[in-house]
Amino acid sequence: MELYLIRHGIAQEHQPGLKDEERQLTKEGRQKTEKVAQRLLKLDLHFDLILTSPLVRAQQTAEILIAAGLSSQLEISHYLSFEGDINSWLKDWLEIRNYTQQTTIALVGHEPCLSSWAEILLWGEAKERLVLKKAGMIGIKLPDDGSPLGRSQMFWLTPPKYLL
Amino acid sequence: MELYLIRHGIAQEHQPGLKDEERQLTKEGRQKTEKVAQRLLKLDLHFDLILTSPLVRAQQTAEILIAAGLSSQLEISHYLSFEGDINSWLKDWLEIRNYTQQTTIALVGHEPCLSSWAEILLWGEAKERLVLKKAGMIGIKLPDDGSPLGRSQMFWLTPPKYLL
Repeated sequence: MELYLIRHGIAQEHQPGLKDEERQLTKEGRQKTEKVAQRLLKLDLHFDLILTSPLVRAQQTAEILIAAGLSSQLEISHYLSFEGDINSWLKDWLEIRNYTQQTTIALVGHEPCLSSWAEILLWGEAKERLVLKKAGMIGIKLPDDGSPLGRSQMFWLTPPKYLL
Repeated sequence: MELYLIRHGIAQEHQPGLKDEERQLTKEGRQKTEKVAQRLLKLDLHFDLILTSPLVRAQQTAEILIAAGLSSQLEISHYLSFEGDINSWLKDWLEIRNYTQQTTIALVGHEPCLSSWAEILLWGEAKERLVLKKAGMIGIKLPDDGSPLGRSQMFWLTPPKYLL
């Protein structure tokens, strides 16, 4: 099973009267994310499923990936909001869902959550040692059996500038 | 200070009468490494210095990077052979050399050494959780002061296939 952790693109700044969860991608954020999506397509990537945080800037990012043809399945997952945690998600995903080793899933969300999830998968704890830029991504391979926590391997970490 | 850890390209298989340290890049290994070098150049990368393991396949890889114009300085470093270790190298480099924070250095070497070095810089110990393919690379930013061990950050990890 492969996980691709993708951070949302550049979004509107915080401003009075605008709830954090309603901040949208800026024009630049949208364009850069579309370019990243096109590049991922050229690299022959395809996701069986994209799970996205319910926040608008993440949903818009996920929709750009879908529109580019990187997946045909999109679901909103509250585990990917700021209140989510990886242990609950994995428990839900691996135990309740019909988990197969061939699955490739993209998770679209936020920092510092996504890089913490990655570190917990790799090393068992989060120490803020990974830099995940907006519209950047991390690729992780989960072990074929046993707990993935502290036992997974990272094969990719890239800022968008190296994809454009 | 930024470190780019670059694994040598595809090399000849082990065979009787051929010492490990004399194994050369194959034609495919040379071509792929040249393509990676061209891509790094397009991405505006430049190294103040390339240090390479003394083994032939690493030296040949480093020479391809030099020929592409990614650096004009090449040195052989025995710390990058299989007997080397990062603590000694850092001690040598950071204490004895005239170390500046602006320096960008590429280290060309071998697995599992390079990804272990990376993990020690990020996490303080090596757990084999990073996948570094031949002609792939890792980008690490060292902290501005204090020991870099267990305190550095990774901003890039890529196999060559995502650079071609």
